Amino acid sequence: MKTDRLQQQLRFLAEIDQLKSVLRRTTLIDKSRLENSAEHSWHVALMALVLAEHRDTEDLDFLRVVKMLLIHDIVEVDAGDTFCYDIEANRDKLQRECEAADRIFRLLPDDVGSDLRSLWDEFEEQATPEAQYASAMDRLQPILQNLNSQGNAWQQHSIRREQVLSRNRHIGEASQSLWDYVKRSVTEATDKGWLID
Amino acid sequence: MKTDRLQQQLRFLAEIDQLKSVLRRTTLIDKSRLENSAEHSWHVALMALVLAEHRDTEDLDFLRVVKMLLIHDIVEVDAGDTFCYDIEANRDKLQRECEAADRIFRLLPDDVGSDLRSLWDEFEEQATPEAQYASAMDRLQPILQNLNSQGNAWQQHSIRREQVLSRNRHIGEASQSLWDYVKRSVTEATDKGWLID
Repeated sequence: MKTDRLQQQLRFLAEIDQLKSVLRRTTLIDKSRLENSAEHSWHVALMALVLAEHRDTEDLDFLRVVKMLLIHDIVEVDAGDTFCYDIEANRDKLQRECEAADRIFRLLPDDVGSDLRSLWDEFEEQATPEAQYASAMDRLQPILQNLNSQGNAWQQHSIRREQVLSRNRHIGEASQSLWDYVKRSVTEATDKGWLID
Repeated sequence: MKTDRLQQQLRFLAEIDQLKSVLRRTTLIDKSRLENSAEHSWHVALMALVLAEHRDTEDLDFLRVVKMLLIHDIVEVDAGDTFCYDIEANRDKLQRECEAADRIFRLLPDDVGSDLRSLWDEFEEQATPEAQYASAMDRLQPILQNLNSQGNAWQQHSIRREQVLSRNRHIGEASQSLWDYVKRSVTEATDKGWLID
């Protein structure tokens, strides 16, 4: 019985290895290549811990935050990464990702799978302070990649200042000080020509 | 003051982006390329949660386990990855990595940096059940990559069965059932010719 459960868990862990091959639009800071969703997930999970003091909600369950960030993108194994500024591709994003979640989390024993699935739903629904803080990290990370690489992905995709501000506004729901930082930095980036005014 | 702290934290988060360019000897399961240490760190952190029920110590602080796994390799930004079966390179590994830890964790505000540094030390010293379980995950992950890819890295580096068993024996200190699984699987892998007998 326990061996069956282990086999299911190992099958899941092998399946999600594919997340290392899902490419995002953001590059590494050194601009050498596109970032993948697995290393992005590592970066945001660690970011959530390092920036903890900037949260606006005092009592956050950080284990839940980190779990959410470790799994938030694994549906991309089936659904692919959807560029946040691609309106057309974002139309059916939720449906594609829900189908992927159904398949991937069901590889696990029921109790483990439904625990992770409910965390994934919580992140998507943005209903808890943990989900809002986790999402703020997910939004902040590509901004930092851009700010540290002369707006490399922004420039490649001709992104406008207003798109970045509008898309990422809800960082302010989790951390006013981080959102203030983003607004200042986006203004400076626009002045430098990294974003279109 | 808080802005200074944020600048230090963002500097650290930008610095560790380089971990995405540190290559390990293990490949992705699809054999398309070598794995990097950032995506490996994501994989082991999630593995620690998914395999939690196989631990032998009932009360583990999983937030500490996951934190350790998220940071356990960041010294490689300076020190590089050391192949576990390379005896010569492993001689001065600890010194190189300690110097790296000194530099990298000191990029952070003192309190945040010393918190993470002590977790890194805890992992290295293997003195707590959390560190032992985290380390078991770190050892198990490349074994799973090999078992799912016809022993791809093992075959490339002519690894012997006895090396894998001797190197990874302490998985059994954290989980007897996972170690039993590894022993069985290594025997099967040897029978298939993926490891040298």
